[in-house]
Amino acid sequence: MSGNTTGVIFRVTTWGESHGPALGAVIDGCPPLMELTEADIQTELERRKPGQTKASSPRKEGDRVEILAGVFEGKTTGTPISLIIWNRDVRSGDYEALRNVFRPGHGDYTYAQKYGIRDHRGGGRASGRETASRVAAGAIARKILVREGVTVKAYTVALGGVQAGAGVIAEAGQNRLSCPDPEAALKMEVALKEAQKAGDTLGGIVEIVVQGCPAGLGAPVFDKLDADLAKALMGVGTVKGVEIGAGFAAAGMPGSQCNDPLLPSGFAANHAGGILAGIASGQDLVIRAACKPIPSIAREQDTVDVNGNPIKLTIGGRHDVSVIPRILPVCEAMVCLVLVDHLLRQRAVARFPSTSVI
Amino acid sequence: MSGNTTGVIFRVTTWGESHGPALGAVIDGCPPLMELTEADIQTELERRKPGQTKASSPRKEGDRVEILAGVFEGKTTGTPISLIIWNRDVRSGDYEALRNVFRPGHGDYTYAQKYGIRDHRGGGRASGRETASRVAAGAIARKILVREGVTVKAYTVALGGVQAGAGVIAEAGQNRLSCPDPEAALKMEVALKEAQKAGDTLGGIVEIVVQGCPAGLGAPVFDKLDADLAKALMGVGTVKGVEIGAGFAAAGMPGSQCNDPLLPSGFAANHAGGILAGIASGQDLVIRAACKPIPSIAREQDTVDVNGNPIKLTIGGRHDVSVIPRILPVCEAMVCLVLVDHLLRQRAVARFPSTSVI
Amino acid sequence: MSGNTTGVIFRVTTWGESHGPALGAVIDGCPPLMELTEADIQTELERRKPGQTKASSPRKEGDRVEILAGVFEGKTTGTPISLIIWNRDVRSGDYEALRNVFRPGHGDYTYAQKYGIRDHRGGGRASGRETASRVAAGAIARKILVREGVTVKAYTVALGGVQAGAGVIAEAGQNRLSCPDPEAALKMEVALKEAQKAGDTLGGIVEIVVQGCPAGLGAPVFDKLDADLAKALMGVGTVKGVEIGAGFAAAGMPGSQCNDPLLPSGFAANHAGGILAGIASGQDLVIRAACKPIPSIAREQDTVDVNGNPIKLTIGGRHDVSVIPRILPVCEAMVCLVLVDHLLRQRAVARFPSTSVI
Amino acid sequence: MSGNTTGVIFRVTTWGESHGPALGAVIDGCPPLMELTEADIQTELERRKPGQTKASSPRKEGDRVEILAGVFEGKTTGTPISLIIWNRDVRSGDYEALRNVFRPGHGDYTYAQKYGIRDHRGGGRASGRETASRVAAGAIARKILVREGVTVKAYTVALGGVQAGAGVIAEAGQNRLSCPDPEAALKMEVALKEAQKAGDTLGGIVEIVVQGCPAGLGAPVFDKLDADLAKALMGVGTVKGVEIGAGFAAAGMPGSQCNDPLLPSGFAANHAGGILAGIASGQDLVIRAACKPIPSIAREQDTVDVNGNPIKLTIGGRHDVSVIPRILPVCEAMVCLVLVDHLLRQRAVARFPSTSVI
Repeated sequence: MSGNTTGVIFRVTTWGESHGPALGAVIDGCPPLMELTEADIQTELERRKPGQTKASSPRKEGDRVEILAGVFEGKTTGTPISLIIWNRDVRSGDYEALRNVFRPGHGDYTYAQKYGIRDHRGGGRASGRETASRVAAGAIARKILVREGVTVKAYTVALGGVQAGAGVIAEAGQNRLSCPDPEAALKMEVALKEAQKAGDTLGGIVEIVVQGCPAGLGAPVFDKLDADLAKALMGVGTVKGVEIGAGFAAAGMPGSQCNDPLLPSGFAANHAGGILAGIASGQDLVIRAACKPIPSIAREQDTVDVNGNPIKLTIGGRHDVSVIPRILPVCEAMVCLVLVDHLLRQRAVARFPSTSVI
Repeated sequence: MSGNTTGVIFRVTTWGESHGPALGAVIDGCPPLMELTEADIQTELERRKPGQTKASSPRKEGDRVEILAGVFEGKTTGTPISLIIWNRDVRSGDYEALRNVFRPGHGDYTYAQKYGIRDHRGGGRASGRETASRVAAGAIARKILVREGVTVKAYTVALGGVQAGAGVIAEAGQNRLSCPDPEAALKMEVALKEAQKAGDTLGGIVEIVVQGCPAGLGAPVFDKLDADLAKALMGVGTVKGVEIGAGFAAAGMPGSQCNDPLLPSGFAANHAGGILAGIASGQDLVIRAACKPIPSIAREQDTVDVNGNPIKLTIGGRHDVSVIPRILPVCEAMVCLVLVDHLLRQRAVARFPSTSVI
Repeated sequence: MSGNTTGVIFRVTTWGESHGPALGAVIDGCPPLMELTEADIQTELERRKPGQTKASSPRKEGDRVEILAGVFEGKTTGTPISLIIWNRDVRSGDYEALRNVFRPGHGDYTYAQKYGIRDHRGGGRASGRETASRVAAGAIARKILVREGVTVKAYTVALGGVQAGAGVIAEAGQNRLSCPDPEAALKMEVALKEAQKAGDTLGGIVEIVVQGCPAGLGAPVFDKLDADLAKALMGVGTVKGVEIGAGFAAAGMPGSQCNDPLLPSGFAANHAGGILAGIASGQDLVIRAACKPIPSIAREQDTVDVNGNPIKLTIGGRHDVSVIPRILPVCEAMVCLVLVDHLLRQRAVARFPSTSVI
Repeated sequence: MSGNTTGVIFRVTTWGESHGPALGAVIDGCPPLMELTEADIQTELERRKPGQTKASSPRKEGDRVEILAGVFEGKTTGTPISLIIWNRDVRSGDYEALRNVFRPGHGDYTYAQKYGIRDHRGGGRASGRETASRVAAGAIARKILVREGVTVKAYTVALGGVQAGAGVIAEAGQNRLSCPDPEAALKMEVALKEAQKAGDTLGGIVEIVVQGCPAGLGAPVFDKLDADLAKALMGVGTVKGVEIGAGFAAAGMPGSQCNDPLLPSGFAANHAGGILAGIASGQDLVIRAACKPIPSIAREQDTVDVNGNPIKLTIGGRHDVSVIPRILPVCEAMVCLVLVDHLLRQRAVARFPSTSVI
């Protein structure tokens, strides 16, 4: 229980380092008899793959997923699904200079503190590359959700200080940043180019909307649906804040404004973000995650080496300017994992026999 | 595993409804031979107790905790500690009118959806009263932390739209809202009075600062320290957003600003909020939680009954105007529970034999 | 996670010491809308209650269970069910002489080794009295099983070296030892009287038969149904061995004898005890648990005190001659807990949509 | 949580089917900075490897383990260790005739009942081959135990009805069956040859002795050390019974005989098998596991196909005559996994600061 497993029923364990031979995930608890191919998973990995755009790292990872277990003749068997993604194009030598240096904003220092040993090559286990395993596992979760009529879609609502205005989600796919506000998207692209030129990086805010989430999903007290979503997203290395529905803005509202009235036709607003008392209300789930700028910058920084000596560090190598848009499928994957786990948990403790609710 | 247990090693299970006979908590995994009395726990409960201030509910809960197991001759035995708090002054009749009504902003509707049954009296299990169990359990966790030199302190940084300026934490205890900015505290009090007059309620933002958190605490990937903190706080019914360090503001910073430089004397800033890659850096942990306004308002609201008929609802009874300041010890308790659990987990997997870290 | 919780979905946590104020259990994960009263649970507790027979301890425990949470208007709500049993007739003074002595065969020595502290009064947490909490929780599990058509029945197949011949299970209830072989039952009673006269105690073997267990229940690899049953029963203090179906006898059979042939009408034998590869076959589950003699004997024994000094110990006080028959409802309770947990787990991961199996 | 993970702190998840591309294990929770090579693991796998003796299956599995993650420059990093064993020499065609047939004594029928789908090739996930993953993970656990001075050794005490007399454990390694009684070993070999000639298979009993287990290891109530050992061993497909110390024989003893007296020099006997009230006493742990005969026999058996039609089945292919001796390292591995997990759990909840125990 060292933190590499998530879920109660739909359990995902990831393993692998950025510059080791491979990454992978084991998914235990996937219902049997579901059709599943490597292509189903590959589709999601492609969305996360680096090297596609100017803003992304030019490293060619390949990211070909292989299913090693748990699928027989195209269908899940109910036993653990084992996925592997081989690391290719791994130039560990690039990192030799960093062996004894703590990069600011990275996990180098804290890993050394915790373990007394770290794989310094590309962040090892703390690398963003670890999220490939999550996306792969999330692709399986998504297949289950699709069967239940649930869709999960992440888009960009802020980047480098540029805020998207209220846009149409359907527009989000039309630009490579998945920003529903086309004008803001253009400004974001400008900000990215300028940051790159300056050897700097940018952060942003991702909004995830879940449609079709069944009312009743979730749990009271500690494992609230929003609590598990917050953990899942805050568990992505780049995320420094998570909010649901009105989120931090709710703190400034009076109750008479924040409460969502109930009408015979349904809820009249959605400040709750689709979750009341930790349980889904049947409205859309609306979640936002704040992503910090990528810490690997090309500008000179103050840091120390493992002996505490001061160092002026300039990081070269292949790095993205922003985690956006590559983080979008990661956020979706994390939300999918939480929803499927709660979906299966709900089946377990639903009343006997199932009847209409109200 | 229906969501009422938290922690891997230091495990807390809470039970009880607002208007049932009692509430309680079972704490399994507390190390033995620690001195523990009911007074240790009562001290924390007093901070959460209602009826002390004008802004708080006049209900006299009493909230006397009793230790039923796990302590022998004043010391913990290493076996489960069972705590009970009897519910007194319970006027269930007050709630009879709400039996068939869904109060906006409450869990009434979602509990009905999930379970097909709900204890309508005061929110039942979804009541804020459930947090008394958490505060009681947190008091035990805090005793362990104190021995390790770790302090956890929550204060109010916003209320009803009034933002506290940068204040001195030590000031926070000097006013009943625990706001480090005395001027802002006065404005918050005004806002509370006006809201009460208007039959309305207010939200706010709580900041929790942890001093003395050992570097190395936490875990990679899913169980990151910040991920577990986010879950713990988002698992408090009133919380709609959580951020660590710079939080949402980090999304607008360039990397060259957001990164905390490392100097031989230590970190030169703390935008990370004391956590890098999910593991504590040894700096102060800084966490903020956004609390929505209490949904029980005295103003008329639109809602429906269990048959879907429209209703004009005005909620009477004894209710606070804001969860602040009573939520402060709850937030502290949740943070204490997470820290102790990670502290004990770290002892389990620390290297053999323990040596200095770097 | 210090060992006082069992189950993945239907989770039971017990707490309480033999001579503390109370014992209890928290059951999280019980489906909602099931009718449940204290009488349902009391019925099972009565079967375990001491003081009913000559062979049992004359201590009057009372053992009145109270439901403190999780049941509303006679039905489960889906939230944690909290049960409490107050300890009455507790004469702690009886045990004062044992404060510094390790009783042979008891947990005194090992608790001291583990915790450095122990509640010496009646075994504290290691007391057989702790099983009252299990029986109470098991009564709720049994109610679920009954709805699914599953029955769990324990009976005595050996006591004090007297083996029961193949009997009729229906006969088992006709004598107070629940032995299906009436002649053997008489011999067992004689053995009990002689042991009591000699200041000694006796062990025995309990067989538990489950009828109506749905085929498909269980899990592969580590959480096999038989593995979980073995853990559950070996987790009862008195149990030193567990076997399924042919059990140890299977080790002496050739495969041609041990295999249960499959005929169009069903299995032609049940050496497997109803479980193949960790999953229920639809046949009766047959499980046996070997119970050691109660270690508290009235005869003089060699032991040491906490300082390692030799002591001649003769234990007085109120003690049973054998755990049989009081252990029978405990064994049933443990089996019920395992079966319900696997039943709910199976609902979680069953294929979508459910269809006929073969 | 579908049963493929074991351990609370030292968590092992296995995956893979007999005739899929590979098997593997993910070990999360191994302390960092421990030296670990593939050779450390390979040594244990060699002991389990088929094809070495006449009694074992001639299939050449190869069983070369590769470490894919969690080890850096020869040392564990504290992050998940991922192990893979590629399946070679897989002749799936051998099993085509069994696609629609339920082999008696195998998991074919119950897997079909549970999942509605099964990989019929060699048992799929239910194959004994799955235990290679356990042996690999157990090898890592053993390395930790060795550092703590704990040894785990399994030997054969019965095979095909031949019982070993009281032997010297040191002798056990001198014959290929690891039987401490050389004469019995010869008779066992004869029994094996006769069974093979008859197209039949044999069961046996394995005894596992743990030396150096620290007093205090274990937990009360549900997670007793013996309970976890029982689960671990009963979770091996072939095992139908588990006993600790005197085991089933204890059921026939009076308390005056079964109790192990405590002398200033230590315990005067070990009927308890080294565990009292679920916690290790510091004596040797003694555990026995009853293994059924391998169900794949060359003699004609009655069974049915998936449509319920009667079939006369004769199983060809490459099969062992007995799980002994190949099961010995599997039993050792399971015991190692339990002990390491409890060792790390004990470190987590040990008192602050550690002091001498009594």
